[in-house]
Amino acid sequence: MTNQSGPYNIYSYFIGANPSTSFNPNPIFPKIKRTAFLSPFTSVIGDVTIRDHTYVAPFVSIRADEGSPFYIDRDCNLQDGVILHGLKNKHVNVNGKNYSIYIGPRVSCAHGSLIHGPCEIQQEVFVGFKAIVYNAQIGEGSFISTDAVVTGGVALKPHSFVPPGAHIDTQAKANSLSKVPISEVEFAKEVQRVNKEFPSSYSFLFGKIKCSCGLAY
Amino acid sequence: MTNQSGPYNIYSYFIGANPSTSFNPNPIFPKIKRTAFLSPFTSVIGDVTIRDHTYVAPFVSIRADEGSPFYIDRDCNLQDGVILHGLKNKHVNVNGKNYSIYIGPRVSCAHGSLIHGPCEIQQEVFVGFKAIVYNAQIGEGSFISTDAVVTGGVALKPHSFVPPGAHIDTQAKANSLSKVPISEVEFAKEVQRVNKEFPSSYSFLFGKIKCSCGLAY
Amino acid sequence: MTNQSGPYNIYSYFIGANPSTSFNPNPIFPKIKRTAFLSPFTSVIGDVTIRDHTYVAPFVSIRADEGSPFYIDRDCNLQDGVILHGLKNKHVNVNGKNYSIYIGPRVSCAHGSLIHGPCEIQQEVFVGFKAIVYNAQIGEGSFISTDAVVTGGVALKPHSFVPPGAHIDTQAKANSLSKVPISEVEFAKEVQRVNKEFPSSYSFLFGKIKCSCGLAY
Repeated sequence: MTNQSGPYNIYSYFIGANPSTSFNPNPIFPKIKRTAFLSPFTSVIGDVTIRDHTYVAPFVSIRADEGSPFYIDRDCNLQDGVILHGLKNKHVNVNGKNYSIYIGPRVSCAHGSLIHGPCEIQQEVFVGFKAIVYNAQIGEGSFISTDAVVTGGVALKPHSFVPPGAHIDTQAKANSLSKVPISEVEFAKEVQRVNKEFPSSYSFLFGKIKCSCGLAY
Repeated sequence: MTNQSGPYNIYSYFIGANPSTSFNPNPIFPKIKRTAFLSPFTSVIGDVTIRDHTYVAPFVSIRADEGSPFYIDRDCNLQDGVILHGLKNKHVNVNGKNYSIYIGPRVSCAHGSLIHGPCEIQQEVFVGFKAIVYNAQIGEGSFISTDAVVTGGVALKPHSFVPPGAHIDTQAKANSLSKVPISEVEFAKEVQRVNKEFPSSYSFLFGKIKCSCGLAY
Repeated sequence: MTNQSGPYNIYSYFIGANPSTSFNPNPIFPKIKRTAFLSPFTSVIGDVTIRDHTYVAPFVSIRADEGSPFYIDRDCNLQDGVILHGLKNKHVNVNGKNYSIYIGPRVSCAHGSLIHGPCEIQQEVFVGFKAIVYNAQIGEGSFISTDAVVTGGVALKPHSFVPPGAHIDTQAKANSLSKVPISEVEFAKEVQRVNKEFPSSYSFLFGKIKCSCGLAY
């Protein structure tokens, strides 16, 4: 039960299989690319795929012990305190396969956001501070602002803009959203530019400091 | 100062006594049933009782260093990022005893919720995503939706339904709440069913992997 | 890369330099006073100054790997789950020096609040449960209530009161705020009184329990 495929820094995060339950009888270990980076104090449990160059900040919980599997594509960032979890037996279908959570490439999940399956978040979406996405499909390039909630089985068109604190829980509300303003498009791109430097730079920093068990050093 | 009564998996959480302060001079170690499960990266401090078959997810802070004691009954779940803390010298009285936080059996506290004493949460309450309960009494079977706040010393009748984002801070608002809809009753029961499998299944998974100090393996 | 100036309890937190990036090429190690206290499960990264008698609760992420530096003055408290992060190349100027985040003495950041640079928080400010301060200057003695957001480059006059859930994102809204009510002034002072006992009492508790790597004991 060691992490065969994980990132270079074998360090101080937790990676483990889901426990065997009636709804998920088979323990499955996460599949994490070596070029991803998991910060100290992150937890990844169950059938989770994390692709290349994705950055995971401290205190992120990716917990596929109920809804499963989770897929997180390349060049994403999951910032401090982000939580991923999913309801059992609820899925989104992407390219013919079922997922509890599917996150496309170059998605940013900002500090304290909650991504709860079933949901699909397409490429280059920005999820703002403490926002919630649950039971929703978010079209590519959308921007979900601070404290907003998107739920209720809605599908957001590509490049939808969800204003701060908005509660989008019907398809009618989802359909009425305007396009992402150019300033937010630029902001989201800049967050991508910054975070794409972290996986390699953190891996370099931690690469030579390995400890079989510990945290402080 | 070892954990004499804690769960089977002596693993990677933190359990410790409260520090000695002017308001809590005596360090008291948590009392945690062996059939409870504490995830990697959980912290439990001070005079805290956790009863049988309660599940504590990653990044949960149960910190009884100010308001004290805390009581968490059997078959509860505290999901990722939940925080329990209390104000000093403020209590609820349950069955003739004072508590900073009293949580009855089969209560679900969903991801990112904040339970702040003084408060009493009676049996089978569901506290939603990022909701806040502070200085309140929540009657049994109530359902507090996502992002809602219940505070101001109010008492919620049994089976009260707090809508998403509602801010219940007067008794008049509390009295005007409707009953929990049947769909939410079913949802809360399902969350209970799922989470009651976790303490034993996680304990089994971790049971043979013990490390005196460590996290990554 | 050991922590030369850190607090007494060398224990179970993470302290590390920022990684070398195009925007922060030089790794800088945090400067933390020995009378500060970092709880188990805290993370401090990069050019961060933490002054005397400041208390940092579990699951706090202070991450100066993008916006930098951060300054946290004496007698502050950062409660459970607080996040500090900043945008690159955005600063506040305090006493002729640039900071991503500047926090004056005796500031309380309550559970789950998010402090995002660029921002200045002057002395004796209270930041409430899950509140957000981002791109703002908060005048001394202000009180930001639960779930409120202060952003948009606004400057709050000293002793401004931000009501629960308010979204202050224009200077006009900021100017219209009333003074902090006496009950909230007293509450904030009491939070200060309580938290100022924690750094020394926790340091005493942990002082003799040192582990080169570990958490559980």
